[in-house]
Amino acid sequence: MQSLSSALLWFDYLGLAVFAATGALAAARSRHDVVTFVAFAILTGIGGGTLRDLLIGAPVFWVHSGHYLLVCVGVALAVWIVGERPWRSSALNWLDAVGLAAYAALGAAKGLSYDVTPPVAVTMGVLTATFGGILRDVLAGEPSVLLKREIYMTAALLSATLYVAGRSAGFDPAWCGAVAFLAGLALRGGAMLYGWRLPGFDSDR
Amino acid sequence: MQSLSSALLWFDYLGLAVFAATGALAAARSRHDVVTFVAFAILTGIGGGTLRDLLIGAPVFWVHSGHYLLVCVGVALAVWIVGERPWRSSALNWLDAVGLAAYAALGAAKGLSYDVTPPVAVTMGVLTATFGGILRDVLAGEPSVLLKREIYMTAALLSATLYVAGRSAGFDPAWCGAVAFLAGLALRGGAMLYGWRLPGFDSDR
Amino acid sequence: MQSLSSALLWFDYLGLAVFAATGALAAARSRHDVVTFVAFAILTGIGGGTLRDLLIGAPVFWVHSGHYLLVCVGVALAVWIVGERPWRSSALNWLDAVGLAAYAALGAAKGLSYDVTPPVAVTMGVLTATFGGILRDVLAGEPSVLLKREIYMTAALLSATLYVAGRSAGFDPAWCGAVAFLAGLALRGGAMLYGWRLPGFDSDR
Repeated sequence: MQSLSSALLWFDYLGLAVFAATGALAAARSRHDVVTFVAFAILTGIGGGTLRDLLIGAPVFWVHSGHYLLVCVGVALAVWIVGERPWRSSALNWLDAVGLAAYAALGAAKGLSYDVTPPVAVTMGVLTATFGGILRDVLAGEPSVLLKREIYMTAALLSATLYVAGRSAGFDPAWCGAVAFLAGLALRGGAMLYGWRLPGFDSDR
Repeated sequence: MQSLSSALLWFDYLGLAVFAATGALAAARSRHDVVTFVAFAILTGIGGGTLRDLLIGAPVFWVHSGHYLLVCVGVALAVWIVGERPWRSSALNWLDAVGLAAYAALGAAKGLSYDVTPPVAVTMGVLTATFGGILRDVLAGEPSVLLKREIYMTAALLSATLYVAGRSAGFDPAWCGAVAFLAGLALRGGAMLYGWRLPGFDSDR
Repeated sequence: MQSLSSALLWFDYLGLAVFAATGALAAARSRHDVVTFVAFAILTGIGGGTLRDLLIGAPVFWVHSGHYLLVCVGVALAVWIVGERPWRSSALNWLDAVGLAAYAALGAAKGLSYDVTPPVAVTMGVLTATFGGILRDVLAGEPSVLLKREIYMTAALLSATLYVAGRSAGFDPAWCGAVAFLAGLALRGGAMLYGWRLPGFDSDR
């Protein structure tokens, strides 16, 4: 990832910590023990990036460094100690939106740094942002975003597309990352605040 | 895949388009938006081949070419526009059977081209043919073929076994592919028409 | 895996056979046909080690040898023929505990042999031991260990941690493996016999 702007790298830990927290909170809803908290934090935090790295043939990002796992363990312990009550507000949804937008831009950037085509880079952004949460929901027995009508994957698609389009047009990685992040966050935020959704399939047309 | 007969390569796009359509139709049943249509089309169309390539250590087939993704996007949009009514007949099941037989032969052929043993090549054929659909069903919250008593995986097993056996006996790839494809399609078709099934496990024996 | 003590290698086939049996028995509970028996035996037996190998960048262990698949097929056929009645006792749970402890030590050892850090090696041990069973349960539509409150993943964590700690302290691989295996088996066994469990998350603190 030498070609990846260091300005984007903090997106990595930001997305990681936020998704790890949502994983631990999924475990909290089922009154699990601390080992399961850690397991859910890890698989939610690293799931998307792991799939991305396997697909593009990169060394899996957390395997050759212990820090990613330790961040997930730390977040899981923090949720265990703090409890879920402080999180029950909409704060958690906003943190999840932050992680979604950050991971979408980061995933697209890492895809481009491995010389894939623009549509593949966009796909890498979307799955980096969404796969960890899908894994969390399937394993927790809850409906995943693939079963909900909210604007969620669409926000990741917007972030990843803007990043890839901006880079293809020759703009600076840091600027592309910032614009992509803010646009995805705004779309997801608007969907949460105002209930925006895309039209659903209507078989009676 | 230099050693893979070009006569087999069209199986790739055939299976892709057919499975992508079944993925989009799974999204249609839940009245999803167009982004989710595309997501289901992609993961159903490319899921099996992706797992195969990761397992045999090949570059993942769709990552270094944009065409596979674009086919899935096009199929998803077509299903979105056309609607599900024209598909409600048994046509969809037959298309799925075509994809199953095509992907089973193709997957086995790609396995052999990476010098795996015959049992492993057969396994690659079966999982190329079935994994995308299993992924679609698990993520859509529907029972997968692993929970049904139909002859489905068995048809993929027949196709893959015939292909590998024929190639081991020295026959031409194109002939092996044709025979394997037709045999798998016939078995799956017979199962659909006449309700064929293998005996189930009986604990009272 | 040159650096892996041959004394540990039999753990591989032990875990494989035991988990394959639990997979076939999951198929038996749903009265499936013999092809589905084999499919469940394979995915349960090889699932954990496959994920481990993909993550550490190792060639997937069963792809370049036919023996692993053949063991799973043989076990599935044996369960099919023998039936599930002889297994209904607690024998199955004990076999599963044996597989859990064996795979946890083996997975950690293989991780270390690929020069990952200690926390990553422990993670590899845990997922080698647990992922096949999670896959089996998700695909069979049953609650996985991630949804249960039993001590299960914790026993794998103990085995993997002891193995990695022992090796880091310079002890012989065979001794580390034996101690790790017995400790994990004892913890899981105690949990089965006496209902041990870790405290669950309590939101009312």
